[in-house]
Amino acid sequence: MKIEQNSRLVFIGDSITDCGRAIPIGEGSGLGNGYVSLVNAFLQAYYPERKIRVTNMWTSGNTIRDLKARWQRDVISLAPNWLGILIGINDVWRHFDSALQPEIQVSLQEYQSTLLALTQAVRPSLKGLVIMSPYFLETNKKEPMRQMMDDYGQAAAEVAQEVGAIFVDTQGAFDHYLEVQHSMSLSGDRIHLNLTGHLLIAQAFLCAVDFEWQLLRCQYVHEDTVDTSGKV
Amino acid sequence: MKIEQNSRLVFIGDSITDCGRAIPIGEGSGLGNGYVSLVNAFLQAYYPERKIRVTNMWTSGNTIRDLKARWQRDVISLAPNWLGILIGINDVWRHFDSALQPEIQVSLQEYQSTLLALTQAVRPSLKGLVIMSPYFLETNKKEPMRQMMDDYGQAAAEVAQEVGAIFVDTQGAFDHYLEVQHSMSLSGDRIHLNLTGHLLIAQAFLCAVDFEWQLLRCQYVHEDTVDTSGKV
Amino acid sequence: MKIEQNSRLVFIGDSITDCGRAIPIGEGSGLGNGYVSLVNAFLQAYYPERKIRVTNMWTSGNTIRDLKARWQRDVISLAPNWLGILIGINDVWRHFDSALQPEIQVSLQEYQSTLLALTQAVRPSLKGLVIMSPYFLETNKKEPMRQMMDDYGQAAAEVAQEVGAIFVDTQGAFDHYLEVQHSMSLSGDRIHLNLTGHLLIAQAFLCAVDFEWQLLRCQYVHEDTVDTSGKV
Amino acid sequence: MKIEQNSRLVFIGDSITDCGRAIPIGEGSGLGNGYVSLVNAFLQAYYPERKIRVTNMWTSGNTIRDLKARWQRDVISLAPNWLGILIGINDVWRHFDSALQPEIQVSLQEYQSTLLALTQAVRPSLKGLVIMSPYFLETNKKEPMRQMMDDYGQAAAEVAQEVGAIFVDTQGAFDHYLEVQHSMSLSGDRIHLNLTGHLLIAQAFLCAVDFEWQLLRCQYVHEDTVDTSGKV
Amino acid sequence: MKIEQNSRLVFIGDSITDCGRAIPIGEGSGLGNGYVSLVNAFLQAYYPERKIRVTNMWTSGNTIRDLKARWQRDVISLAPNWLGILIGINDVWRHFDSALQPEIQVSLQEYQSTLLALTQAVRPSLKGLVIMSPYFLETNKKEPMRQMMDDYGQAAAEVAQEVGAIFVDTQGAFDHYLEVQHSMSLSGDRIHLNLTGHLLIAQAFLCAVDFEWQLLRCQYVHEDTVDTSGKV
Amino acid sequence: MKIEQNSRLVFIGDSITDCGRAIPIGEGSGLGNGYVSLVNAFLQAYYPERKIRVTNMWTSGNTIRDLKARWQRDVISLAPNWLGILIGINDVWRHFDSALQPEIQVSLQEYQSTLLALTQAVRPSLKGLVIMSPYFLETNKKEPMRQMMDDYGQAAAEVAQEVGAIFVDTQGAFDHYLEVQHSMSLSGDRIHLNLTGHLLIAQAFLCAVDFEWQLLRCQYVHEDTVDTSGKV
Amino acid sequence: MKIEQNSRLVFIGDSITDCGRAIPIGEGSGLGNGYVSLVNAFLQAYYPERKIRVTNMWTSGNTIRDLKARWQRDVISLAPNWLGILIGINDVWRHFDSALQPEIQVSLQEYQSTLLALTQAVRPSLKGLVIMSPYFLETNKKEPMRQMMDDYGQAAAEVAQEVGAIFVDTQGAFDHYLEVQHSMSLSGDRIHLNLTGHLLIAQAFLCAVDFEWQLLRCQYVHEDTVDTSGKV
Amino acid sequence: MKIEQNSRLVFIGDSITDCGRAIPIGEGSGLGNGYVSLVNAFLQAYYPERKIRVTNMWTSGNTIRDLKARWQRDVISLAPNWLGILIGINDVWRHFDSALQPEIQVSLQEYQSTLLALTQAVRPSLKGLVIMSPYFLETNKKEPMRQMMDDYGQAAAEVAQEVGAIFVDTQGAFDHYLEVQHSMSLSGDRIHLNLTGHLLIAQAFLCAVDFEWQLLRCQYVHEDTVDTSGKV
Repeated sequence: MKIEQNSRLVFIGDSITDCGRAIPIGEGSGLGNGYVSLVNAFLQAYYPERKIRVTNMWTSGNTIRDLKARWQRDVISLAPNWLGILIGINDVWRHFDSALQPEIQVSLQEYQSTLLALTQAVRPSLKGLVIMSPYFLETNKKEPMRQMMDDYGQAAAEVAQEVGAIFVDTQGAFDHYLEVQHSMSLSGDRIHLNLTGHLLIAQAFLCAVDFEWQLLRCQYVHEDTVDTSGKV
Repeated sequence: MKIEQNSRLVFIGDSITDCGRAIPIGEGSGLGNGYVSLVNAFLQAYYPERKIRVTNMWTSGNTIRDLKARWQRDVISLAPNWLGILIGINDVWRHFDSALQPEIQVSLQEYQSTLLALTQAVRPSLKGLVIMSPYFLETNKKEPMRQMMDDYGQAAAEVAQEVGAIFVDTQGAFDHYLEVQHSMSLSGDRIHLNLTGHLLIAQAFLCAVDFEWQLLRCQYVHEDTVDTSGKV
Repeated sequence: MKIEQNSRLVFIGDSITDCGRAIPIGEGSGLGNGYVSLVNAFLQAYYPERKIRVTNMWTSGNTIRDLKARWQRDVISLAPNWLGILIGINDVWRHFDSALQPEIQVSLQEYQSTLLALTQAVRPSLKGLVIMSPYFLETNKKEPMRQMMDDYGQAAAEVAQEVGAIFVDTQGAFDHYLEVQHSMSLSGDRIHLNLTGHLLIAQAFLCAVDFEWQLLRCQYVHEDTVDTSGKV
Repeated sequence: MKIEQNSRLVFIGDSITDCGRAIPIGEGSGLGNGYVSLVNAFLQAYYPERKIRVTNMWTSGNTIRDLKARWQRDVISLAPNWLGILIGINDVWRHFDSALQPEIQVSLQEYQSTLLALTQAVRPSLKGLVIMSPYFLETNKKEPMRQMMDDYGQAAAEVAQEVGAIFVDTQGAFDHYLEVQHSMSLSGDRIHLNLTGHLLIAQAFLCAVDFEWQLLRCQYVHEDTVDTSGKV
Repeated sequence: MKIEQNSRLVFIGDSITDCGRAIPIGEGSGLGNGYVSLVNAFLQAYYPERKIRVTNMWTSGNTIRDLKARWQRDVISLAPNWLGILIGINDVWRHFDSALQPEIQVSLQEYQSTLLALTQAVRPSLKGLVIMSPYFLETNKKEPMRQMMDDYGQAAAEVAQEVGAIFVDTQGAFDHYLEVQHSMSLSGDRIHLNLTGHLLIAQAFLCAVDFEWQLLRCQYVHEDTVDTSGKV
Repeated sequence: MKIEQNSRLVFIGDSITDCGRAIPIGEGSGLGNGYVSLVNAFLQAYYPERKIRVTNMWTSGNTIRDLKARWQRDVISLAPNWLGILIGINDVWRHFDSALQPEIQVSLQEYQSTLLALTQAVRPSLKGLVIMSPYFLETNKKEPMRQMMDDYGQAAAEVAQEVGAIFVDTQGAFDHYLEVQHSMSLSGDRIHLNLTGHLLIAQAFLCAVDFEWQLLRCQYVHEDTVDTSGKV
Repeated sequence: MKIEQNSRLVFIGDSITDCGRAIPIGEGSGLGNGYVSLVNAFLQAYYPERKIRVTNMWTSGNTIRDLKARWQRDVISLAPNWLGILIGINDVWRHFDSALQPEIQVSLQEYQSTLLALTQAVRPSLKGLVIMSPYFLETNKKEPMRQMMDDYGQAAAEVAQEVGAIFVDTQGAFDHYLEVQHSMSLSGDRIHLNLTGHLLIAQAFLCAVDFEWQLLRCQYVHEDTVDTSGKV
Repeated sequence: MKIEQNSRLVFIGDSITDCGRAIPIGEGSGLGNGYVSLVNAFLQAYYPERKIRVTNMWTSGNTIRDLKARWQRDVISLAPNWLGILIGINDVWRHFDSALQPEIQVSLQEYQSTLLALTQAVRPSLKGLVIMSPYFLETNKKEPMRQMMDDYGQAAAEVAQEVGAIFVDTQGAFDHYLEVQHSMSLSGDRIHLNLTGHLLIAQAFLCAVDFEWQLLRCQYVHEDTVDTSGKV
């Protein structure tokens, strides 16, 4: 697994990861109820000896513009070794649910340039950087909000390429799932997720850091006690 | 994976799995926040096409005596294909935190015979039955409450053997983890768990049903975008 | 306008019209905050002399099956002169957000036959009956939930034809609006509406009863006091 | 309709329009539950393509003196194209419910001169200005509080004339309604309104801006499906 | 004073006297905050040796029809020596604020005949009976709700005459006050009163029972210590 | 009556008069539920034409030391014509319920000198000043807390004499009542009062200002309608 | 100590011991915050090996009449070995704070005869019975409520003598304390106690059962580490 | 007893003694519900004439580092004569429940040197100083958290020796109790205590100050009224 012993892994982003984390620092019992707490649980349960410290600095409703405003306090000052970023959903969403309030919408150009500037500045001090695409649980790629989300995801991928970050295509992970299940099984508004949805993101992140997905403790199941083949 | 398409998987037990599930039927968004909702998330995320229906019928503070009282309504009438049981923690605990109230303590004999009777009655109608041991997050096997918990766990194992159930040694799964981390990292009272603790149980259960733990969706990570080897 | 003086107009349906109405009878200040209270406000403001009494008997989460269970108490016993019905959204929705719980899903066949039976029974005692189609704020008619909603809407239209009811195509009203605005401007989950959405339904209903949309009181605006043509 | 595409329409006044709007800016889902949110719903539902942005800056209990104190922050700095003002009710009311507290009463002279000063200053930057009269739901024009309210309404009309504003006689709109219904059907205290009362104000405002009251979407009602003429 | 030592004085009526009294019996600290608690305070403070027991059995929103339903339990079974009744306000009010709900309005005929029947039945067992008129804080006697209230007050007076009760003209007491002050100084909705309004009713009641209004304890003021005549 | 038309009457003191008054100025509906609101109700009900303005500036738990700290803001800056003071209860009480906390106890000397200084400074600007004694509902004058309270009351009387204030012996008013009733009928702790207790203080104050206690409105009782002499 | 190993000790009485105990059975963490929980803490801390089970069955506001009504359910059915009773305070109090409500006052005769009947019936089944006197924190024995309380205490003592119970003179314990401290240091209303007051009752009870008051664990203080004699 | 008349005894530490004490000064009714309020109750009940003033300045979650930050304000400025300190539990706990957050853990070295510095500075101004060991309700001395707690307790003992303080071995007091009862009877998490646990600390403290544990008031029990020897 790529994340080294005693690393500090900080997540920053919007409400998807916020999920009730503690203020000002989301840590320990203050990690919230979203995918960050799942990532932490996996890291602690599978690699307790690595002592990887996970911190959740996401804030509900944030756009890249908000991240910029608190970058020094909420990212730099924590001196992370690894950083995970999932931003852009609200940047896009405001164009649709607040169409008449242009000052709270973030353009594609501002999104990409800000993300690039922030990550370039912090990259040298990191051992690893993971950029996750924003997503919209809509399978119709012509739908306007999906279309715009794909553009922002493409921008995130380009930034990842430019700064040497791992890029996680969360939209792709959801698209795969949505081939067999309807979006209503994960989310009412196609954005906020239930636990299954959070698990899909957590898993995509863990793949990105080469998490070895082996079942170390299956020894604790006494598999020989039952033969269910002929039942009922 | 052992659980067949369109199966109904019901969990019954005490507060460990309760975690705020909905009343009277814990299902959908009413699965609570414990290991049952994790098991469900894994099953939905990895096997969406199997359409396995998970129901959480656990109740806070229950002993085997309470399960008996609601067995018909909360287990039989739901006609499960698979059943998961984790019971015994309160049966033991009351001997220690309520030592002067014998009428709310359940003896080892009553625990074992009731568990046997309940599972024997329901076994023929099931495709699979999983009995999980009660646990106490204490590494000292001579500690009286741990000692009694081990006795009840042994009884649960014997019942599993007798009725042809899969037995999951949750105590063993925790013991393994506790070799490298202190119990305070999972629980304040050595019983109620944080998410990492619930994940350890969920994983032990999933092992028991041959959950294939492969990373189907790692394709969504663009692993070639980064080389972190020479950083910092 | 079709609704005669001293008529009683009862609405029954699901959460779209519920919006916090009073229990057991939604009337006066207990009409809730949805389209029914808007319809009432229009009727009182424009036709105060007609003294039309509006009652809201909708219940959150209801399907046609629930309406059947309370039809006698909540419709028949109120002896309405006019009846408005908007049902079917939950009948469809449960197939998608609760795909594994078939017993809370209502099939198209059950939906149509129950709606027919209920309205046939009450039709002779009514002066007017209005059946409104269920809707889903999705413009892509191939989307599975939209597709199923259209089928249920078609069934509602057939029932209306059969029992001599006015049919209101609420889906069509929304489709028209969605040609120029995104669904996020009306609703997060494409079902629950803000005030603009409720106004679109209220207006569709009022059209159905030939509401004369004239501006009776524009005399109270002193239009000659201003000429804005040359301003800034 | 007079309000041009992409206009910003700001409302300012007292509790009649406040109705729980968001602080500091009442916009989007923060418009409150009063007549401003109705005006907004009409504008969005009928003229979605005009993209008129409505903002509610009213504050409960305000007099013209309070408006003066926050005029720069709550009106000027928002750079509205259109402005709607309904002020004066509390200016009058304090003379009657707080007769012994002269310092919170606003005299007719102060009311008129302040309203004039504020609107004169902002008028050049506006495309349209709407001044609505304060009102009291009392039909007896000799009643002292009604009498004083009429004086303040007259002052508002004079200011409207002087600054080239549209004047809306809300008192007249209510008087018309009160010819056939008692004030208790709109309000307990003759000031605070239910939805029907708010609709009467909203409609008076919309008349003032030449809102075309046509039923664009009546096509969605299948009017030929029913003939209720011979029923019962 | 007419009320004899050791008498029990029960009040029954609607919300005017309810004011938060205790359920099921309003007595001691459960007398509420309205005029009944003022009457009690006067009786205790001025005639402590008479030990007059006051009980408040009024219920918010009640009409004479409601009194009839609970007359046995809330009046007869308490075996009062004196009884005070103030009823009729809601009987009238519902004609105006709920004009479309005739089943909750009480006609003049029903009001008078029910009041007569109830008081005739209880009169023989009482030493004294006080019937207070309903009131509406409106000075214009042509106002429809005032007019109707006067009719009901006249009916109450006739009943008082017929059954040998003391009649208290509370409407007259308020009319007197309203000659010099506006109704807004007592009440927002012309029905529910502040403490000054409750004192006006309490005083009218006490007059009715010949309460001697002397200042028994003025000896405790050292009046000779000050001469304020020449101050400032 | 001594208080002239258009006077402002301010009360200042401790929790006895506080009773939930509004902050920062207790006026209108913010007068609280204690004796000050009763005094106000009497003044408004009996002398509406005098338009006497009553303000309640008392604060729970205050001693004379606290009054000194807020004298400028809460007394002088309000420019009262009449001032009522009831202070000293907490000054004494702290010697008994907080015997080990000397810094929150106020000595007799400090009490008297501070009261003198405060009242001397404000006296010239007043038309009338009323000083009310602190009290303790204990009939045994040898009881230590009663004894100390009497000393402080004596000091208050001396200050009243010195500055030309009306002195109201509230302790004497209570003593009179307690000759026939037990203190438990007024108060649980012999300090905090029910409405009867507050009425006793209000009445003592009103006596002090020559309140004419006549029954102006007894004309509204039709006394001739009943003869209760021969009943039962 | 008189209470034998494995005894069950039940307390019954009024609010003094109630203090928030659990319903229906006050036990374990449901013992409340009054003297019963202190007695329990002493018994557990000093005699853990005796395993004495303490149950709190007191109810706020109870008189002996209330105890009679629930004696079977709350005493007999619990089969106590030892029983503690403290009753009579409310029996007396109602004569003073509710002087006009004779039906909630309990006479001395009823008090004594009921207490005798209840204790005679249960005495044969008990190993020990402790009757505690009611009390009033008033040192003046001529004060009427103190006087009446002493009469009821005397009656309790006579009953104790008659049925062979240990009698605890709680009034005497408080009198002793009140010789050096004022009642305000224990209670505002001379009935409800702070922790010091509860400790005085707990201690009186423990004396009654020969609690050996030795300092078993003083060995854990290293007394030789300090000599404070010459400090400061 | 060592604590002299009129002494002020201040306690400072963490949540064990916090228990809801008042802010900013925990005194009188603001002492909280933990062992400090028990110590106070004993001192007041047994030595009322000594007038020892107890103040609780503990704060939930504090470590020695937190004490240092508020030492001047919360200890020095209160000028205590005696000081009780129980600190170290959180200093140790954070190493186990927050193993990945080193900045909130306090090392043994920092603990000891800070405790020494703080107590050395204040010692000269005190008549007596009591240092209580931190504790962990775990009987297995090899358990890592118990082991670390013992090290910190040893450090506390060394500091006590060095500054001339009384050292109270609270861990030893609990160990004694735990020989016969399980820790679950005192605490769920082996740290936070029920009343029995608090009594064990209170008693250990009182031993330390030579509290004479005699039963002064046993005279109030009429021991001769009963002979339970032959019962049942």
